[in-house]
Amino acid sequence: MRGAIIHAPGDVRVEERPDPELVEPTDAVIEVTATCVCGSDLWPYRGIEDVHGPAPMGHEYVGVVREVGSDVSTLQEGDFVVGSFFASDNTCEICLAGYQSRCVDARPMGAIGTQAQFARIPLADGTLVATPGMPDDDLIPGLLAASDVLGTGWFGASAAEVGPRKTVAVVGDGAVGLLAVLAARQLGAERIIAMSRHDDRQTLAREFGATDIVSERGEAGAARIRELTNGLGAHSVVEAVGTQESMMQAIRSTRPGGHVGYVGVSHGVQLPGDELFFSEVHLHGGPAPVRRFLPRLIDLILSRQIDPGKVFDLDLPLDRAADGYRAMDERRAIKALLRP
Amino acid sequence: MRGAIIHAPGDVRVEERPDPELVEPTDAVIEVTATCVCGSDLWPYRGIEDVHGPAPMGHEYVGVVREVGSDVSTLQEGDFVVGSFFASDNTCEICLAGYQSRCVDARPMGAIGTQAQFARIPLADGTLVATPGMPDDDLIPGLLAASDVLGTGWFGASAAEVGPRKTVAVVGDGAVGLLAVLAARQLGAERIIAMSRHDDRQTLAREFGATDIVSERGEAGAARIRELTNGLGAHSVVEAVGTQESMMQAIRSTRPGGHVGYVGVSHGVQLPGDELFFSEVHLHGGPAPVRRFLPRLIDLILSRQIDPGKVFDLDLPLDRAADGYRAMDERRAIKALLRP
Repeated sequence: MRGAIIHAPGDVRVEERPDPELVEPTDAVIEVTATCVCGSDLWPYRGIEDVHGPAPMGHEYVGVVREVGSDVSTLQEGDFVVGSFFASDNTCEICLAGYQSRCVDARPMGAIGTQAQFARIPLADGTLVATPGMPDDDLIPGLLAASDVLGTGWFGASAAEVGPRKTVAVVGDGAVGLLAVLAARQLGAERIIAMSRHDDRQTLAREFGATDIVSERGEAGAARIRELTNGLGAHSVVEAVGTQESMMQAIRSTRPGGHVGYVGVSHGVQLPGDELFFSEVHLHGGPAPVRRFLPRLIDLILSRQIDPGKVFDLDLPLDRAADGYRAMDERRAIKALLRP
Repeated sequence: MRGAIIHAPGDVRVEERPDPELVEPTDAVIEVTATCVCGSDLWPYRGIEDVHGPAPMGHEYVGVVREVGSDVSTLQEGDFVVGSFFASDNTCEICLAGYQSRCVDARPMGAIGTQAQFARIPLADGTLVATPGMPDDDLIPGLLAASDVLGTGWFGASAAEVGPRKTVAVVGDGAVGLLAVLAARQLGAERIIAMSRHDDRQTLAREFGATDIVSERGEAGAARIRELTNGLGAHSVVEAVGTQESMMQAIRSTRPGGHVGYVGVSHGVQLPGDELFFSEVHLHGGPAPVRRFLPRLIDLILSRQIDPGKVFDLDLPLDRAADGYRAMDERRAIKALLRP
């Protein structure tokens, strides 16, 4: 089959890879309908994370079940399924508490590489959620977004305890930040401040429900949020970048007793304990347990109540994956969808 | 009046200080019935925090109202009152959300210095809670504990989301840690693991409700907690020390999705963002909004359901404050009560 391989920073190629096979009786093999390039894929692409290549790439996917192992009981050949970037058993104590991304048996899908024609999905019963019937073509991008960026933005909003009567600020205007805006809207936030300095992303943020835009960043950005909130700070702040600057911007934008939900994969961040202590905020985040949210997200998408697929502003055949990486790296695209 | 003054690290003296007077119409002046030495007083005493002396000391107090300003409406001369280490209006948006220690008009009582015969209490209506009538003498230590260490331990347990069916670990066996054990018991925890290596403190921890004692600390301590919890970590961990080691011990003792409540005043702590991210814990803490809990705590004490006064294992006249500091510094006492 064809699949994307990273050889070195900046060097992603689509090549022949072995067809996946069932390995464990809890596995399924799916034919990938759509996959995409993640903001976090840019860390190795940019050489900020070490590349131990050649290595397969991709951890977002929707597809059709082609084969199931003997222990798989909830899925059948032909089912259209959505999964997430960690395979999880969905039965352990941690999964049952809603933290499937930290399942005691969690398997990172990035190591399998879903930017490919087919993919082996471990722990298929726990990991995959089947849609009722085959979804309309135009809903594929939305369902693919649920696989990671929507689920991650939703977790960020949820970790930030977004809800009615609350003012929410979102740090980061990538796909996750934009979809955190959408999540905040769905979760009933009264006011949603998107922090963005790019016209096209501001437009999409407004479409997703942002009521205010703040273009300042860092300390100036936090000061602006406090200005907009009677000097107190927002009730809920979603951090969707992962740098020292963005984390401090998020913490300093939050009122005492408020909540920071952080979902940007942390790179080189050191949080000063004394400032955190006196800030008196709640901090929660990490790799999103997308599986917790998938049934609700799929339902919202299929019933056309939300359209998260709008974050895909580039649609390419899988063979042009390298162009997708390049466009996102150069910020010419918010997010690139790849069709095998 | 007589009052404690710090001149330099290790040098606390009880000297003549001016009698306090009403300054603002929202002030009260109280005659201090009992006050005490706080673990956080040891930071300047040990020279770890700068001493800008001579400076008054003390921020814990119970006493009798002697004078009220013209705007004070809920208190009268002769009322027995309990307050906390931040004066707060208890009417602003932050106070109403339960974060009185970060009141928009918060005043640190440490700057006033309650290790003295009398004290001016700003924002008296918001800050002080009067007991119904004069409490029995033997309840004075418990009520004094409510002023800070009990309220702080309670906030730690509350920030760690302690509750029924949960396993709780407490890092730190000072008065706050021990009272976090008591709070965890009151809040219905199923299992309470006190981390302590001192016999007398272990005994008190068990009396307050600890079901297990772990004497290892640091990484070994965290490993022991995971061992006791099926490899997962505790649901709720209270951190009551404030050092790098104790914070990391707390985070590493907590299961994914679990809660760390941290109340040890942070000194020199830097939290590694990547480890925090992948730990997937909730983190919340800071200076305890004791005022939020005071009515409930006072009720539990007056009805003799809890006896937090047991943390005072040294009872001295105010004039011997220096002996109290020394005994706590040398760990000969858990907490020293001072009687003006």
